[in-house]
Amino acid sequence: MKKSFLIVAIAACVLFNNVSFAQNPPRALTGRQLAAMFPPGVKSPECNKDGTVTFRFQAENALKVELNCQMFEENKAMTKDEKGVWSITVTPPAPDIYPYCFVVDGIQVTDPNNVLIFPNENFKNSLVDVRGPVPDFQDMQDVPHGKVSYRYYHSKNVGFDRPMCVYTPAGYDPKGKEKYPVLYLIHGMTDTYETWFKVGKVNMILDNLIAQGLAKKMIVVMPYANPYPEMMRRGSATRMDMMGTDLFTKEILNEVIPFVEKNYQVRSEPGSRAIAGFSLGGRQILACGLGNPDKFQYVCAFAPAIFGNEVSNNFDNGTYAKPEVISSNLKLMWLSCGTSDFLYQTSLSLHNSLNERGIQHRTMFPDGGHTWMNCRDYITEVAKLIFK
Amino acid sequence: MKKSFLIVAIAACVLFNNVSFAQNPPRALTGRQLAAMFPPGVKSPECNKDGTVTFRFQAENALKVELNCQMFEENKAMTKDEKGVWSITVTPPAPDIYPYCFVVDGIQVTDPNNVLIFPNENFKNSLVDVRGPVPDFQDMQDVPHGKVSYRYYHSKNVGFDRPMCVYTPAGYDPKGKEKYPVLYLIHGMTDTYETWFKVGKVNMILDNLIAQGLAKKMIVVMPYANPYPEMMRRGSATRMDMMGTDLFTKEILNEVIPFVEKNYQVRSEPGSRAIAGFSLGGRQILACGLGNPDKFQYVCAFAPAIFGNEVSNNFDNGTYAKPEVISSNLKLMWLSCGTSDFLYQTSLSLHNSLNERGIQHRTMFPDGGHTWMNCRDYITEVAKLIFK
Repeated sequence: MKKSFLIVAIAACVLFNNVSFAQNPPRALTGRQLAAMFPPGVKSPECNKDGTVTFRFQAENALKVELNCQMFEENKAMTKDEKGVWSITVTPPAPDIYPYCFVVDGIQVTDPNNVLIFPNENFKNSLVDVRGPVPDFQDMQDVPHGKVSYRYYHSKNVGFDRPMCVYTPAGYDPKGKEKYPVLYLIHGMTDTYETWFKVGKVNMILDNLIAQGLAKKMIVVMPYANPYPEMMRRGSATRMDMMGTDLFTKEILNEVIPFVEKNYQVRSEPGSRAIAGFSLGGRQILACGLGNPDKFQYVCAFAPAIFGNEVSNNFDNGTYAKPEVISSNLKLMWLSCGTSDFLYQTSLSLHNSLNERGIQHRTMFPDGGHTWMNCRDYITEVAKLIFK
Repeated sequence: MKKSFLIVAIAACVLFNNVSFAQNPPRALTGRQLAAMFPPGVKSPECNKDGTVTFRFQAENALKVELNCQMFEENKAMTKDEKGVWSITVTPPAPDIYPYCFVVDGIQVTDPNNVLIFPNENFKNSLVDVRGPVPDFQDMQDVPHGKVSYRYYHSKNVGFDRPMCVYTPAGYDPKGKEKYPVLYLIHGMTDTYETWFKVGKVNMILDNLIAQGLAKKMIVVMPYANPYPEMMRRGSATRMDMMGTDLFTKEILNEVIPFVEKNYQVRSEPGSRAIAGFSLGGRQILACGLGNPDKFQYVCAFAPAIFGNEVSNNFDNGTYAKPEVISSNLKLMWLSCGTSDFLYQTSLSLHNSLNERGIQHRTMFPDGGHTWMNCRDYITEVAKLIFK
């Protein structure tokens, strides 16, 4: 009686976040009891041998549980078994890494049994990694691996220490004679400096491209584009203008680049600097890159959030350099957007604006929406082109 | 009408994970419209100037929302305002970093508006970082910062590539003449290789201790102790024995240490190697450390999961070396456990077993439970003692 109470109590504690251990500490327990603490068999997500994926979620008392997964346009109803485990088995449209969550009586819930999380300021999704029969560039393969480092630098621009992720390729020697080109890679709105690493898989993509001789060895710098959450936390009096790009450009030019060029073996001529960004990050890198073609010779916009007459205004008011200066400096101007992305029409407008001004650029307008599945394809193609 | 529909639709899309953009793409939108997409003012958690903390969660239709936070032993009821935002303002018992979640009609939900997540295989908590008037060792201060790198190595032991986090201190020169001691630091059951970094804040603690001259410069290696989730994903036929320590010891000695000693400027004599672990990790490092006192001269157990006659058995069956070998080799044997930790009694038993065998050891039995608040205090004290 006492023993089984202990086991049940402890299992409950583990499931409920170890919170109540301190509250009702069992006096002592055996290894068998600890083993019994192990959460029962809710395995989720499970990639099955036939290519399907099963999602499971324990919720005895929920009335309705749905799967919200970017594999599909609509939520999918899950069904409950006699143990209170809701599940669904689905066939993914293609192997890829998809964000998902459970919708439990209308509330979005991260999968508690999955360690893969989508870093974001305003929602929490899990990630399901569906592998195909042939490894993709985004899959970890048995090739030499670079590393991703979490670095911290003091920003005089905003007045506090800030994080960034930095990818260095396998064999990078911080004291060697070889100097590397640098890609500055910017996330989307409400994403964080971790999103290109954890969701964009840029380190795995580059490990594989470099191992296959398809991309140059390069360093990838992923700063936190938007300091607003930290400014809010500090009760900053500074006006926050999410759509403004000045604070971003200043941070990149005056803080991020100097930190990188001081701490890494990098080439600092403009032909060895690329800047790329997704969504709001696309808006930001257009301002920073097209505004400073003497500093970046590769400017790559992925579904950029730039609208209506803003492009014309930016050329007129000097946010962007003169078209002829851009044309004579840039080695690559890139624009990509999915044809069902909500920013597709504005991307086409940008495409036309660049054409009207005689700015050569490469485009990629594949299927798909405003997703990280598309982003990984964009960065894969861009990584093959830059610094060559 | 059309415009406000767009804004509402887009705001809804952002809140609901960008999923439906691809489904119903608005044709075009202005910067003002994009700005309007910005999620409305649910700010959570908010650390107020008076030392209180306010948590908020949007859930119009929920019947009951509670805060489950390790500040408190019991869940706290939250109240709903007219906009459907549930909130509660609490007074933390002390400045610290606390795990929490919301319990929405009985379901645990991570805070969608907080980027700080507790990495774990079986639950998802958010973290609230309550700062005091005087910075603590775990707070980011304006001192030289080391970095944490995500590394990947091939394990012949389990047959696939595995991740680890590695802290290197500020000024670490991978090609320099200075060689560093190494602490191998192991997480608890269902934690991951990221938990000592993201929750344990070991990088911030060491940055501050080193800057103040309180700890030696050292490298901290945080491997993924338990390969079981990845083995499960691969449908491994290998028997998984969570309480067994052989697979762990083999991985550390045959895979992790050789990788570290090949890739970092480290000292490899046993006096420059420490091993420490929490909970299940404590069980594992006792087997690995006390079983190999010729390889580690610092063995530090934090609330180790070792029970009843297992200690005696381990001395009898050779899992641990002979007491006199341990005593003559070790420079520090450390044992700590909170007095309300459910493993406190078993820690006292281990303490007695070591005394009976004449194995000198330092202990720390502070208030508190089986928590990472306690863990950060343990690693702070241990970091001051080792390699001196």
